[in-house]
Amino acid sequence: MNGAQLIVKAAVASGIEYCFANPGTTEIPLVAAMASAPALKPVLSLFEGVCTGAADGYGRIAGRPAMTLTHLGPGFANGIANLHNARRANTPIVNVIGDHASWHVNYDPPLASDIQALAGSVSGWVRTSRTASGIGEDLQEAVRSAWQAKGQIASLILPMDLQANEVARETAFTTLHAPVRRFAGDRIEAVAQALRNGQRLVFIVGDQGLSVAGLEAAGRLAQLPGVQLFAETFPRLSYRGGGLPDLDRLPYFPEVAIGVLDQYDAVVCAGIPEPISYFGYEGIPSRLAERDRLLYLADVGDDVAGALTALADALEAPAFVPTPMGVELPPANAELTPQSIGQVLAASLPDDCIVSVEGGTCGYPFFTASARAARHRVLTNTGGAIGQGIPVGFGAALAERGNRVFCLQSDGSAQYTIQTLWSIAREQLPVVILIAANHRYAILQNELRRFGMTELGPEALSLTVLDRPRIDWKALAKGYGLAASTVHTNAELQRALANAAADGGPCLIEMAL
Amino acid sequence: MNGAQLIVKAAVASGIEYCFANPGTTEIPLVAAMASAPALKPVLSLFEGVCTGAADGYGRIAGRPAMTLTHLGPGFANGIANLHNARRANTPIVNVIGDHASWHVNYDPPLASDIQALAGSVSGWVRTSRTASGIGEDLQEAVRSAWQAKGQIASLILPMDLQANEVARETAFTTLHAPVRRFAGDRIEAVAQALRNGQRLVFIVGDQGLSVAGLEAAGRLAQLPGVQLFAETFPRLSYRGGGLPDLDRLPYFPEVAIGVLDQYDAVVCAGIPEPISYFGYEGIPSRLAERDRLLYLADVGDDVAGALTALADALEAPAFVPTPMGVELPPANAELTPQSIGQVLAASLPDDCIVSVEGGTCGYPFFTASARAARHRVLTNTGGAIGQGIPVGFGAALAERGNRVFCLQSDGSAQYTIQTLWSIAREQLPVVILIAANHRYAILQNELRRFGMTELGPEALSLTVLDRPRIDWKALAKGYGLAASTVHTNAELQRALANAAADGGPCLIEMAL
Repeated sequence: MNGAQLIVKAAVASGIEYCFANPGTTEIPLVAAMASAPALKPVLSLFEGVCTGAADGYGRIAGRPAMTLTHLGPGFANGIANLHNARRANTPIVNVIGDHASWHVNYDPPLASDIQALAGSVSGWVRTSRTASGIGEDLQEAVRSAWQAKGQIASLILPMDLQANEVARETAFTTLHAPVRRFAGDRIEAVAQALRNGQRLVFIVGDQGLSVAGLEAAGRLAQLPGVQLFAETFPRLSYRGGGLPDLDRLPYFPEVAIGVLDQYDAVVCAGIPEPISYFGYEGIPSRLAERDRLLYLADVGDDVAGALTALADALEAPAFVPTPMGVELPPANAELTPQSIGQVLAASLPDDCIVSVEGGTCGYPFFTASARAARHRVLTNTGGAIGQGIPVGFGAALAERGNRVFCLQSDGSAQYTIQTLWSIAREQLPVVILIAANHRYAILQNELRRFGMTELGPEALSLTVLDRPRIDWKALAKGYGLAASTVHTNAELQRALANAAADGGPCLIEMAL
Repeated sequence: MNGAQLIVKAAVASGIEYCFANPGTTEIPLVAAMASAPALKPVLSLFEGVCTGAADGYGRIAGRPAMTLTHLGPGFANGIANLHNARRANTPIVNVIGDHASWHVNYDPPLASDIQALAGSVSGWVRTSRTASGIGEDLQEAVRSAWQAKGQIASLILPMDLQANEVARETAFTTLHAPVRRFAGDRIEAVAQALRNGQRLVFIVGDQGLSVAGLEAAGRLAQLPGVQLFAETFPRLSYRGGGLPDLDRLPYFPEVAIGVLDQYDAVVCAGIPEPISYFGYEGIPSRLAERDRLLYLADVGDDVAGALTALADALEAPAFVPTPMGVELPPANAELTPQSIGQVLAASLPDDCIVSVEGGTCGYPFFTASARAARHRVLTNTGGAIGQGIPVGFGAALAERGNRVFCLQSDGSAQYTIQTLWSIAREQLPVVILIAANHRYAILQNELRRFGMTELGPEALSLTVLDRPRIDWKALAKGYGLAASTVHTNAELQRALANAAADGGPCLIEMAL
């Protein structure tokens, strides 16, 4: 048995199912080892950002880490943007990064670079293995480190010689178990006391507070006087629909969010860090609420649902009453708008499906339209590095093979990891990719207007408009082996979604805006 | 005038012509400033790796830095792989990275990350600006730092508030000039003495030694007894053809290179660092020649051509005799092979064109076939981070607008920055992209065999084969607005190249292998 085979054995023993890989020469022993160990399934992608985004989507849905395998510093660097998002989502991920042989790297060959610095920028744990016989334990330590209640990214750098070297002894590995979430009773009591004292409280619920149990408790709390609840703006995983209460999202622009939160005596953080503006705008505070107005019910990684339930119990809140269901449909023959897309998609969602949402154009309209849809889970872009939606949907589809996944995606951000189309076609997963094609970076045009450019001349447009040439989405999808169609009206979108459901395979739908 | 306008003014004064950009919210003042300053041309790309690869190609051909503009840590990270290559090519590049407002970043908003660490991993110079009035000088310092005889990467991190703030005074900027290359006379004398003493010397020529003047001097030296010359394996910019001497490349695999170099008394480094194996293989030394057998004629960044000429003069080498021209063509109706592709392309090259080569399949066959073609310049992948060939060709085409560029590209590596097709269509540059479509990572299959896997089973193939599904290159090209064709025989390739020349616009040719 060589070091690479030991790594594979350790990964399987640690409960790792998938290895999202884009290997090179320094990972050859691992490629060979995976070829003979079917329990760790290698999933090849054409670009590393697909691997890391898929690991994020997998981790959020499966609740346990996947492995990524990338090639030295530059290969890993291609995966950093989506690891940044995964870090903000607290998704457990184990990166294995092949490196030059330990006796070779110090000669500064062409592919040498500072892998530690790159890995450190997104990881909570980084280690370079030093002995072949120890790399199995190194891998298991990486899994243990990643797979915590508040998940994190662990990166293990594996010199090629240690992968190839024979190991003297067989290592026995511990079976690892899902981490346990807890909450602090004294925090429950402090929030309950504030309400009993007549304070008006606004809750911002995040993390596992947006599970079914957490949302049902939120629905109970919402019935108490003086209580208002919001969901965090970009949740890692949020259950929605199927009778769950419709928690609005905290508004994105800081002046709006501050205006909302200011109406209450205190802001209760339930599974979120301190609420901060996404970007800093001149004259608007970074903090959405002053620190002395914050109460912490539960931290990220806590049993947020348990905390909310305990609070509802302590306050003797009424039982949860499911909200009525039913999505209003837009006029069938009208042209698509972001609002009508949200409505048509919401009405088409099958029970327990997964929706990965990325992009400013359709994100919030879908959110408002889907509150009364069938029960579904929403994955959003937690860290703002774009190119996340489709890889995350891909990983989610592997975490629940056979379950249906929808990627509601802006055209601009889809391009950063467009190679995911090939991976979805290769694995023949039931993923429907919905491209909102407005052929521009609409968010940048908004920001230019906020900055004071009332008229966007040709030069400003040249950096924000994507229609010279227009991307032909049907052709791109065909290029990667995916069936595709273009729709213009609500009825056409509805029909395309029905066809996709009947077909059961992957497809791309370009929604002309 | 605000800070962003000052940056643009400083860039133009420093001789920067292009800004390869993929901006976001934290670069909005710079987007607005470029919209009103036509001397700095913004070039939008769909992915940051296109921006940095284009800056590399531009810098190698133009001999001066371009600017890139990327969005915070994750946006910059997407550009790291091609910056790694540019660092190994010693290409001068100035990266401008937008950051959160300086008063906002410490609140750890979602898009915050360690930009310094990311930039540091590929840059010789990194600075975060601290005052709006100083950022013009910061930019000029970045250009000065990048644009040296041995070029390097300079990264300037610009908080958004400093871009937006008004500056009190107008700054006057210095005009910057191209750096001067020099060589050391005593090194010439040492090498000349070794030859006079009857030593047999093998030269490895790199960097500016592969210019016309350098190669003509090499041609003179080659006529001396006891002298053999090789080009470095992956040059940043190499003149070829048009009567220049045919310097073979130092072989890639270390055991072969060592076998060649061992036949000589000493190895002369002429514009290369110490020759090191690309990867480390068990039992084969990292050093291709022992240190005490190395002579340094000129370093990277030196006037290598001047040093070679001075050496030829000192040894009274004969005058340079142009080598005969003429490319042998393969049988017209035979199916394409890597060798025949090299021959057909070599025979089709117009005078003074540029060829960007990436990939193991066609790289060396083209190199051997093109020695007697028309005069052309070759750009290769210097750092081994793949996804470089097409962006570098794109940047080269902007450096010499109207001149013809060929990207000879393997299909696997083309995928990492496939979005470049859109940029080339958008700018309507005369770039011909030749995709060698063998639908596999052939290099990994070779490495698996070197590692001892004589039979590649389905699991090993699943990580090295790209034909499930086969990428439809014509459809992909159409998706990005490029004309495309597929060719199977030598005659078809010849015709497609002739059509491309007649058309004068960009196109993609899939070469079925």
